[in-house]
Amino acid sequence: MKKDYQIRVEDHFNRQGFMKHLNASLHIHGPGDVSIDVPFTNDLSQQHGFFHGGVIATLADNASGFAGYSLMDESQQPLTLEFKINFINKALGDRLSCRAQVIKKGNRIKVCNAKVWCFDKEESILCATALASIMTTN
Amino acid sequence: MKKDYQIRVEDHFNRQGFMKHLNASLHIHGPGDVSIDVPFTNDLSQQHGFFHGGVIATLADNASGFAGYSLMDESQQPLTLEFKINFINKALGDRLSCRAQVIKKGNRIKVCNAKVWCFDKEESILCATALASIMTTN
Amino acid sequence: MKKDYQIRVEDHFNRQGFMKHLNASLHIHGPGDVSIDVPFTNDLSQQHGFFHGGVIATLADNASGFAGYSLMDESQQPLTLEFKINFINKALGDRLSCRAQVIKKGNRIKVCNAKVWCFDKEESILCATALASIMTTN
Amino acid sequence: MKKDYQIRVEDHFNRQGFMKHLNASLHIHGPGDVSIDVPFTNDLSQQHGFFHGGVIATLADNASGFAGYSLMDESQQPLTLEFKINFINKALGDRLSCRAQVIKKGNRIKVCNAKVWCFDKEESILCATALASIMTTN
Repeated sequence: MKKDYQIRVEDHFNRQGFMKHLNASLHIHGPGDVSIDVPFTNDLSQQHGFFHGGVIATLADNASGFAGYSLMDESQQPLTLEFKINFINKALGDRLSCRAQVIKKGNRIKVCNAKVWCFDKEESILCATALASIMTTN
Repeated sequence: MKKDYQIRVEDHFNRQGFMKHLNASLHIHGPGDVSIDVPFTNDLSQQHGFFHGGVIATLADNASGFAGYSLMDESQQPLTLEFKINFINKALGDRLSCRAQVIKKGNRIKVCNAKVWCFDKEESILCATALASIMTTN
Repeated sequence: MKKDYQIRVEDHFNRQGFMKHLNASLHIHGPGDVSIDVPFTNDLSQQHGFFHGGVIATLADNASGFAGYSLMDESQQPLTLEFKINFINKALGDRLSCRAQVIKKGNRIKVCNAKVWCFDKEESILCATALASIMTTN
Repeated sequence: MKKDYQIRVEDHFNRQGFMKHLNASLHIHGPGDVSIDVPFTNDLSQQHGFFHGGVIATLADNASGFAGYSLMDESQQPLTLEFKINFINKALGDRLSCRAQVIKKGNRIKVCNAKVWCFDKEESILCATALASIMTTN
């Protein structure tokens, strides 16, 4: 049976038109620990056929937001204040997967570390690493 | 008549499937100074009907990359190393516009400041501000 | 006559042992707009005799915190959540000056832009630019 | 017997006036893995008697730079392009220790993750986490 936080996180995710537009899927590993995946299509490419940096950043931003939201109460809403991302390897492959984990569970501010992996058949490579601050609002 | 750098920047932009997928348009103000605009559709929304933070971040990332690329030679390619973005106001409106300007024109590294504005009819509001590092590769 | 916010900001500054250790001075230009200066000594140098990056970052961090604090009430305290800094020119000179300005005056979060200049006799150069998030706590 | 990279890193460290001014010590765990420690004194304090955020940021900046430098050749020099730091717990204690590790060993760019711990007697707490980009120059 799904827990309340899972239902709330999935509901937010499903209401995001942008996630549908990217054909993204959500995976909740536990409170404060969330992944978002997207399969490659040319619609998500940059000029050399890799995943676009904007797609990579979008996953980092959004997985962090949901990781933070998964730790909030029913009456609370997440607000992403900021994030920073370093691109460290080319994102060439058939699937992109971002896992975000809350590393500081403050009442007001949750700090997340997000890592974005690119999978090509059976191999994966770390494409980006990010730090994000998610504020709790009422 | 278009200058060489304009042709190169537009060519890269037109080859990015993700920009087509967002229905984005490019505006080159001059060397080191570029804007990217997207009109609102539900495909770009987050859970409350605003522009998704990932779209905002994508514009900041990409406009910065093109601002840097516009200052490079024919033999050079841009590589976005990293960026950081602060979300400062809700992006509710009918159009998002990001302007990126190179504030440090290093040979190897160009540093860009990007600002993302949201337009609603005749009013605009600053939604995000970003700093990005673009490396020149050969 | 000094205003209340000036008295509070100066009091905090004067209680920071680290600012004395750097021989730093504070300049309040107005609410949300603050500078901190330090003169060069070998105590502040890195391996080539420039101002150390840590000194540059310290000024950006602290000027941002005070710019945010200058907009708070008597009952409120500032907490720097995070900052990001790009080093863009060598800091070789006899004085370093950082000016931080609040660019988003949220109730909970103030976002600051800080610029660090290095002065050598009569010339100055921009050494670093930073973005910082300051939270209001009670 | 010390290895060449250790000698080079220690030499840079010893020539930094600012590290002496902070009474900092260097620990090289291996190539791409470096710590810097400082003991608490009032000279390093902010207004409430904690370690100043500028000290925390200085350790993150400098340990990252040395972690990157430890992977460079004799003919190469490090240049810190940028870093971002999130402060996640109060730094109240008798010693601050930052460990930086290179997570991407690019030829041109090394990306480091730095964590700053505060020790109080036998307990430690994570005070800050940072991401930094170090460029190799010739």
